[in-house]
Amino acid sequence: MRICVIGVGAVGSLFAAHLGQLDDIETWAYDVSQDHVDAINRNGLRLTGVGEVTGKVRATTDASELPPCRFGIIATKALHTKSAIAAVGHAFVDGAVCSVQNGVGNEELIAESVERVILGTTFPAGRIVEPGVVAWDTAGETTIGPFEPAPAAMSEVELLAETVSRSGMPTRALEDARGAQWTKVIFNAASNPLGALTGLTHGRLCDDPELRKLVTNLVNEGKAVSSALGVTLDSDPDALIDHAHRVAYEHKASMLQDLENRRATEIDFLNGGIAKFGAEEGIPTPLNETIAALIKGVEQSWAQGDAGH
Amino acid sequence: MRICVIGVGAVGSLFAAHLGQLDDIETWAYDVSQDHVDAINRNGLRLTGVGEVTGKVRATTDASELPPCRFGIIATKALHTKSAIAAVGHAFVDGAVCSVQNGVGNEELIAESVERVILGTTFPAGRIVEPGVVAWDTAGETTIGPFEPAPAAMSEVELLAETVSRSGMPTRALEDARGAQWTKVIFNAASNPLGALTGLTHGRLCDDPELRKLVTNLVNEGKAVSSALGVTLDSDPDALIDHAHRVAYEHKASMLQDLENRRATEIDFLNGGIAKFGAEEGIPTPLNETIAALIKGVEQSWAQGDAGH
Repeated sequence: MRICVIGVGAVGSLFAAHLGQLDDIETWAYDVSQDHVDAINRNGLRLTGVGEVTGKVRATTDASELPPCRFGIIATKALHTKSAIAAVGHAFVDGAVCSVQNGVGNEELIAESVERVILGTTFPAGRIVEPGVVAWDTAGETTIGPFEPAPAAMSEVELLAETVSRSGMPTRALEDARGAQWTKVIFNAASNPLGALTGLTHGRLCDDPELRKLVTNLVNEGKAVSSALGVTLDSDPDALIDHAHRVAYEHKASMLQDLENRRATEIDFLNGGIAKFGAEEGIPTPLNETIAALIKGVEQSWAQGDAGH
Repeated sequence: MRICVIGVGAVGSLFAAHLGQLDDIETWAYDVSQDHVDAINRNGLRLTGVGEVTGKVRATTDASELPPCRFGIIATKALHTKSAIAAVGHAFVDGAVCSVQNGVGNEELIAESVERVILGTTFPAGRIVEPGVVAWDTAGETTIGPFEPAPAAMSEVELLAETVSRSGMPTRALEDARGAQWTKVIFNAASNPLGALTGLTHGRLCDDPELRKLVTNLVNEGKAVSSALGVTLDSDPDALIDHAHRVAYEHKASMLQDLENRRATEIDFLNGGIAKFGAEEGIPTPLNETIAALIKGVEQSWAQGDAGH
């Protein structure tokens, strides 16, 4: 069985390296970084940290080289979903593509190029340390399920979950996997951009009563939208914020690092995604719209010369 | 007649230098900058730009030196109102103090130390170029009136307006001067902190449909609060935003410069002031609260070390 990971940044590399250890799976990777692709083809894809893993992966920057695949696992930043899936879609005419990306709204874009889509949420994390080598910082579970507007069959969702789990990345298949996705996006949208806009660590953000209240109000808008969509959350995102307050006090928002390095963020799929689904469901999301507009404004300021951040 | 300007930064210096030209007025200045005070006492207080003015002003950093004054004009940053008026209040036991500061909520603090308070709004602007010398960049009108909870008599408001006008700073006295104040604070709160958070110039901020919508929503909250207070605005702040879009396209928010230089902002008297009066009147101001919380968060980030902006 052939599986292609689309986008082998930190998260995609965790999947590709693990799958590349399985003899019965032919693992491919598509990425835009020629250095990373070359290193993977030369030495395999190596993980260090939580576990030492080296997977045999055929990597390419040329989408036309991809053979037909049974499954795709797309792990690009959400803002590259559209262009990536347009490039590689041809490889999944008879296959299904699973998103393990951040935010909401990726599956809708994938479904524009692929017939059978799997919705997913993943918690493992890492970072690229050099071409072909990824630090595996955090273990965690992945949850996948059919994307209802363009669903993969439950049998193939289960086959993918079983295969990924067998490779060393625990993955569960659910009929409705939206609970994990919305729990994560609501948590992320209520904390990550506030850290980015203020520069505060997660703990100091939560220490401030006014900002903590804003977090809860953002969470409540997200809950109202997910509830209107018929989603049952895995857990209360507000309680997860409190948990992170205790265990991740010094955590700097990844979006703060994006802004500091003038990298476009995933805001359109976080607060912007919540606002988009809210608009479709008739649920007002003024605070998520405000945060999305401010982050987009920072991104725009980079184009205006020295006035910007 | 003796008048003391409290806080001779850029705006306070415009008033003090003009008043210092009048032979029948003994003009004093209180400020915390010893260099500025020494230069004023040595060479007079000099304005350049819109007009060339040199006023004779007795300046001091020692509040106990201040003799009893008929009027005070307080022009400190709003965040220094409380400490400044506590220091100089003794000089106005038989006098009235007029605020020409930014925002709403200054008069309430002045009234804690002074019996008769005058509410004011001023548009002239400038910047200190060296001790004793201020660039007068913008001419404009000042509007003053009794502060109702602790009002000066209308006759003394008119005396102050007549005196300041005669010195070269056109000033009108109104029974209710809150219209100018609330028009300015709503305009300022809807634009200045958005420029600060995003880094966008005023024009580019207004070019973005989502941010422009946020501006209008912030203005609408401010209008609801001012309306509940019985204030009739001088003009529509949203129309002033459009006017500035045309005439001040490249304007950088003063609050952006505050944040870049890690100076505490006047946010508690802008969006925070609108939110405070809103809470008193039972008018919800979630967007102004959000913006205030984010700016306060940036200010707090400076204390946490390298994670901050």
